[in-house]
Amino acid sequence: MTWEVLSIIGTVAFAISGAIVAMEEEYDLLGVYILGIVTAFGGGAVRNLLIGVPVSALWEQGPLFLVALVSMTIVYLFPKQMLPPWKRWGNFFDALGLSAFAIQGALYAVKMGHPLSAVIVAAVLTGSGGGIIRDVLAGRKPLVLHAEIYAVWAILAGLAIGLKWAESPVELYVLFIAVAALRILSYAYGWKLPRRAVGEKAKGQT
Amino acid sequence: MTWEVLSIIGTVAFAISGAIVAMEEEYDLLGVYILGIVTAFGGGAVRNLLIGVPVSALWEQGPLFLVALVSMTIVYLFPKQMLPPWKRWGNFFDALGLSAFAIQGALYAVKMGHPLSAVIVAAVLTGSGGGIIRDVLAGRKPLVLHAEIYAVWAILAGLAIGLKWAESPVELYVLFIAVAALRILSYAYGWKLPRRAVGEKAKGQT
Amino acid sequence: MTWEVLSIIGTVAFAISGAIVAMEEEYDLLGVYILGIVTAFGGGAVRNLLIGVPVSALWEQGPLFLVALVSMTIVYLFPKQMLPPWKRWGNFFDALGLSAFAIQGALYAVKMGHPLSAVIVAAVLTGSGGGIIRDVLAGRKPLVLHAEIYAVWAILAGLAIGLKWAESPVELYVLFIAVAALRILSYAYGWKLPRRAVGEKAKGQT
Repeated sequence: MTWEVLSIIGTVAFAISGAIVAMEEEYDLLGVYILGIVTAFGGGAVRNLLIGVPVSALWEQGPLFLVALVSMTIVYLFPKQMLPPWKRWGNFFDALGLSAFAIQGALYAVKMGHPLSAVIVAAVLTGSGGGIIRDVLAGRKPLVLHAEIYAVWAILAGLAIGLKWAESPVELYVLFIAVAALRILSYAYGWKLPRRAVGEKAKGQT
Repeated sequence: MTWEVLSIIGTVAFAISGAIVAMEEEYDLLGVYILGIVTAFGGGAVRNLLIGVPVSALWEQGPLFLVALVSMTIVYLFPKQMLPPWKRWGNFFDALGLSAFAIQGALYAVKMGHPLSAVIVAAVLTGSGGGIIRDVLAGRKPLVLHAEIYAVWAILAGLAIGLKWAESPVELYVLFIAVAALRILSYAYGWKLPRRAVGEKAKGQT
Repeated sequence: MTWEVLSIIGTVAFAISGAIVAMEEEYDLLGVYILGIVTAFGGGAVRNLLIGVPVSALWEQGPLFLVALVSMTIVYLFPKQMLPPWKRWGNFFDALGLSAFAIQGALYAVKMGHPLSAVIVAAVLTGSGGGIIRDVLAGRKPLVLHAEIYAVWAILAGLAIGLKWAESPVELYVLFIAVAALRILSYAYGWKLPRRAVGEKAKGQT
């Protein structure tokens, strides 16, 4: 049950975030749908590939697919007056998708008896897979690699699940909300990780 | 039989289209071959991944691989006097590849008993997979996401096959020619889908 | 045994090369780790996909994963005074990774009884897979497609193994060193393959 709820939230959130990025890049109507779907199901496809479930299991998600289509259509038809805060909304949905899929990836890795390090990697790659595919297809550098603290929260989800801090459905939902909230806060307040630039770019720009 | 013919057409067409894009991007001789091969077999790899056939089935396509190599060599050695219409030729071969692989993807999804929505998605993703990989590796935004009506024709192929409008080999060939022709016409006449840009880019550029 | 040694070398080399590219692109601390890991294990994931081993076999590489983490941490904490030759070091590690994974890919294709053409393709795609993923995620055009002679050395590895010139562990290590050295020499001396640019870019820039 928790698994299905997280699937729905993650898929819808990434579908919307993909649609918003496609509109920002001036892609056409179908570009919006395709980028949304690839973002939404790309996360799941990466997860399936990484945990050894056939990618073709995606086809069994007919209802989820319809939900994604409806979500993207609503976003596409959103009234113009409500447009300005797109970027914030894009980040909001990206945060939900990250949190939902990071928890799913970690849960699966635990179920398959993997060690803690693998649980954390599964959380990070599953949570950020959809967003990475979205950004690459939009011709952008993946958000997860350079943005405000991002992957840290996926790691937190992996830790919480790998160390059995969160196991019951209620605990998982609390974890989901906490991870999403931390991601949103880190965006809102511009929390950053240290970075260490080298080479030409660093010389030229800093 | 029809399946093999479509495989050959799609592979050759995407190999040539990849080679042309690589030359446009000033990639070197091997870059041309690699981008051509990745484009040609990337479409098939995406199809295999999506429909649950092992990607390693690619290795059984030795003859197809030779055909792709020969096609790319011919393109690479093409006399200079005939160069100007490259862009048109690139689009021509891209259209053939799109049509051939979209039909293949849809046929496979039907054979596996998937519902209509999955047939359409299979047609779109299989038909555009090779081109998306090509564009990403060339550092471009994927044509399918922003170009003239593109995915619409793949959707049409999915519909025609999912609704059993085209089943016999003759019908499938007619469908193949129709989809490729529509894609070429939409390029020649600049048919476009509506697009709705938001955010900074829209403000800055339009 | 040889297989494990090549795995370790390839993984460490690509992890470091990914970390260096991430620092050049000013990615943050976690961006450095993620790009390094994706580069290191992306090569293996592409290899697994192409040769039909489940991608999830990656999770059994716990020790390899730790080795990659330690390597990236060392690179990240490297003293500033030793920074200037980053680009050269990046190419050095890229060359080691290319050589190690190209030989692995070719060995596997031979073991599975594939023909020579498939052995060569396996060497090229396995050897360059990690680097291609790295460059795409860094928003760069893949080095393998346009750089100095690059794929030629992977093809050489494929030929040497496909034609049974190198079979014993000693021969394989010699081949590994030779391929890496040729790649480094081709970078140092700027050996290039012919390229044939067409279209707008060629007109505009040359």
